[in-house]
Parts: sequence; structure tokens; C-alpha cells
Amino acid sequence: MRESELLEHIYARSAGLRASGGWSVAVGPGDDAAVLRSPGGDTLLMTVDQLVEGRHYEPGTAIDLIARKAVARSVSDIAAMGGTPTWAMATAVLPDACPHANELFDAMSRWAMHWGCPLVGGDIASHGATDHPLTLTTTIAGSMPAGVEPVLRSGARAGDSIYVTGALGGSFASGRHLTFETRVLEAAALGDALGGRLHAMIDLSDGLGRDAGRVAKASAVRIELEADAVPRHPGVAGWREALGEGEDYELCFAAAGDVPGEVAGTAVTRVGRVIAGVGCVVLDQDDMIDAGGLGWEH
Amino acid sequence: MRESELLEHIYARSAGLRASGGWSVAVGPGDDAAVLRSPGGDTLLMTVDQLVEGRHYEPGTAIDLIARKAVARSVSDIAAMGGTPTWAMATAVLPDACPHANELFDAMSRWAMHWGCPLVGGDIASHGATDHPLTLTTTIAGSMPAGVEPVLRSGARAGDSIYVTGALGGSFASGRHLTFETRVLEAAALGDALGGRLHAMIDLSDGLGRDAGRVAKASAVRIELEADAVPRHPGVAGWREALGEGEDYELCFAAAGDVPGEVAGTAVTRVGRVIAGVGCVVLDQDDMIDAGGLGWEH
Repeated sequence: MRESELLEHIYARSAGLRASGGWSVAVGPGDDAAVLRSPGGDTLLMTVDQLVEGRHYEPGTAIDLIARKAVARSVSDIAAMGGTPTWAMATAVLPDACPHANELFDAMSRWAMHWGCPLVGGDIASHGATDHPLTLTTTIAGSMPAGVEPVLRSGARAGDSIYVTGALGGSFASGRHLTFETRVLEAAALGDALGGRLHAMIDLSDGLGRDAGRVAKASAVRIELEADAVPRHPGVAGWREALGEGEDYELCFAAAGDVPGEVAGTAVTRVGRVIAGVGCVVLDQDDMIDAGGLGWEH
Repeated sequence: MRESELLEHIYARSAGLRASGGWSVAVGPGDDAAVLRSPGGDTLLMTVDQLVEGRHYEPGTAIDLIARKAVARSVSDIAAMGGTPTWAMATAVLPDACPHANELFDAMSRWAMHWGCPLVGGDIASHGATDHPLTLTTTIAGSMPAGVEPVLRSGARAGDSIYVTGALGGSFASGRHLTFETRVLEAAALGDALGGRLHAMIDLSDGLGRDAGRVAKASAVRIELEADAVPRHPGVAGWREALGEGEDYELCFAAAGDVPGEVAGTAVTRVGRVIAGVGCVVLDQDDMIDAGGLGWEH
């Protein structure tokens, strides 16, 4: 079974969740983070991501970079909601007699503090198999500025334009998948600048093609991306590489009206538009390519 | 490195954590759950546990029992704080082409609902290695009744008695490690019955010897357990088996004054006392055995 099929199954089963103890579930599975409301009315964002050796990084990667990526991926999800990382938890399944356990924890703790979300708990297990891959999870809680609602994937409207921060492509070849800058400040600046005109947002983990398709599906609209408009990192050969490789961790958002060309020092580029309809396509000269197959699952 | 040594390292590095966004960290790593306070003053308990194939259950275990245990272990941590499970998140690293992914999710979702804490988010990854063990994490949030503070490990006082719910031992041989009843209702009933006389509590995951030792250490007291007083499941040969095997998931607590012999239909048994000093020992006839070496790490 493909992960995307399993996720569809999960989302379909998760409608109308009811929490206990006076908490309520404003947004359940299917967005970058869940949105919870506390009994007293506080908004809490929650996201969890896994980092698996051999899947998300190569064996032999420096411990500090492994820890950084484990934390940064979840920070990026909080940013994609327009939130601020607040506190975190981590787990690890360690190969037996892992000599780097202290170093790994210290590095995760340091990176969590770097993004303002200290590790408040976690769990450690070791596994007898010597070839067991190191597996980490990072759970991050986020808060919203007072009076500001989280930016969901589902708010894009016909007439909006589609934008991305930074540049795309080449994340693996360049090593950026380990060292990318999270866009927490950029997301907050977009919220400040656009207010209610910031309709939808997602972070680009699986490639612009696939992730913009998720916004289109969640919003029940059609997104047309313009191949020539997509900003590419130096060395990225063409738009297919820029859209398909994934792990950019830039923001993609739908907004109405004027949008600044730069936020928090990072470029913002218009890459497409939202129209009535369904699906997500790339317009390349006279060709129209379905964006659903561009990108990868992980 | 032993897990216990790594945990000591983590606890030592985790003093005085400061969260962001108006949240504060009342209790960080080192108890059954972290205790957070929201900007509006709500108390949130957070715990996360991992379940690793071959470590926490045998390959071939029924999917429903795997899912149940993954959720129940974290529910037990919330119970040990005197809290109520409220909402949950789950992650899975699936072997490639796992045929049971839907069934596994449905079972975890069902068990989470059973304990009142619906799955509001999660993450799924698959791993290329065909022999990769199934690895699950369950994060559970808990709430406290209005005006009631979480029961920590650190509140035991000289003069208290030590109690356990239910009976101990034989969890693996009997299969109870997969089917145990969580003690959420019992913990709430203890809070109602004892109020401020319920000084400290922990759930028994690693055996009464080791876990009572954790209460002693956190509380800076000495705990003396009475071998003959420890309630054993039928077929458990002696007190060493009852104290050492782990995965009982009963509550162990320290309290002053009268304690009911039963709460929420579950027996409560006095098994020892708290005195000034350090360490945790078992008194067996004329012998005094250090309890620190009784139990296991996982």
C-alpha cells in the first residue's frame, strides 16, 4: 500500500473527532499540523514527524545534521500554519550500544532550543538487531499570535495567486535537505503583511507539484503552475527537477491582492494561480502536465 | 550506553526549560508525563512511548493487540499523573508493502477512542529493508480535573505508606502485557478519595523494584518494600518474579493516612513504607535486598 492511499484512508476516518477534558479538535489529520483548542480557549498546533536512517538521510551523516533535520522538519510544519514553535518531544530507537546517544540527545535539545521549543519529554528504546536503523520522531507544539487563526491548506479561492518562498530543487544533491532554513519568521511576516488575504499555506516537503496538488484538493479548486516562473536553485536543470525532488521546506501559499516580493529577507515569487475546477497542473509553453505525479512520497 | 544512563544525562540537562508563546513547562523530562501550562492557565499532560517489534512484542502478534498496547502504555502514563486522556497522535515506520497498514491504523484509532483520546495527527514512513521492525509511537495528551494538580513521582514523604493496585508479575507469560487494563479510573478515584494525601504516583512499567526506586530517588526518600506483602498474580512463583518482570502497568503510589482497600473495583494493597534516607530495598524475612537491580529496562 502506498503511503498516500493509507493517508487518504486515515483522513476519511478522522472526521468529527471529539476530544475529552474540555479540549476540542478544530483541525484533525490532513493538514501540516493538528489544531486543538484548550478548555480556556488557547489554540495549540501539534505536529509529529519521523526521521528514518536510510530513508530520510544516508548512514554516516553527522549526528548534528541528523538531529537538526529531525527538529527542522517539524518546525517547518508549524511555520506552514503561521505558528510559533513552543515546546517539543522526541523519541529515538537506537541501535544497540549506540555510542552517540548522548551526543544525539544534546544536538536535538540544542536545535529544539534554537527554534524556541525545548524538549519537555520523550522516550528511548534500543533494539537488539545491530542493523536496526536509527529512527527518530519529533513532536512539536506551536502557538498562534493572539487573535490570529492558523493558515490551513483548505482556504485557497479562485482568483488567488500561488507563491513560494526562496528557491526550489536540488535539495539532496546540495545537502540542503539537512541544512535548510525553516520559514517561521517568513510565515509570521506573511501573516502580518497579508492578514485575511493569506488564504492557504503548506510547506514543501514532497515537491511543489505534489504539495500544491494537496492545497488544490483540500481547497476544492484548481491550481495552475507556470513552469517558467518557478524559482530554481543554481544547478537545478529545469522545472521538473525544481518541482519534483522534494525536501525544499519552503512555503507555498495562496493569497489575494498584492504580495510583497520579499519577507524577512527571503524572496517571494508568484508561481501560479487558483481557478475554479479540480487538480493541479503545470503549464509549460503549450503543454499542460498533471502535477500529481511530480514529487515523491516520504 | 544503558538507557538509564542516557536518561540521567537527559534529566540533568533539562532543568529550567522555558517554552515560547506564553506556554510554561511545569514538569519537564523525568516523570510519567510532562506538565505544561497554556497561556490561559490550562494544564496539559504530554507523554510519548514507542512500541518496537521484537522488543515490546513478538513478531506474529495480532495487529489489534499491537495497536492496543501502543495506545495503552501511554494511557497508563497519563493515569499515573492522575489525569484523563484527551487526544493523541501516532506514528508508524512500516515494513515495505505492509499489508496491515489500514488495519493497524483502524485498530489504533479505535483503541484511542476507547480511552477517550482520538488520534488528531501522526506520521507514516516506510522503510526499504524488508526486515525492518514495525515501530510505533503514541503521544497522548491529558487533562486534569479543575483545581487538581498532577501527581508527580517526587512528592513521597517519610511516614507515607506505599501501595499498589491489582496484582503483579507474570505479565509476559500470561499475555497481560498486551491486554492489561489501564488504571485511569482508579487513579481518578484515588485522587477523589485521598486529595492532598496522595503524595506520589508512578505506573509500573519496569517492575515494582525499579519503579519504586524511581519514586524514592525523585522524592529524596528511602522506600522499604515488604516481600510478603506484594500481591502476586496466580502462577507467579515468588516476590522476585512479582517485582522484577515489569510491564504490570499497575499504579504504585505513596500516601498518608487511611487508604481504601479497593478503588473503582480494583484492589489496593499496602506493600511498604517511606522513611528518611535514600534508595529502595526489599525486606524478606531477615534479608534486605537492594531493589535497584530488580526489574528491566525498556
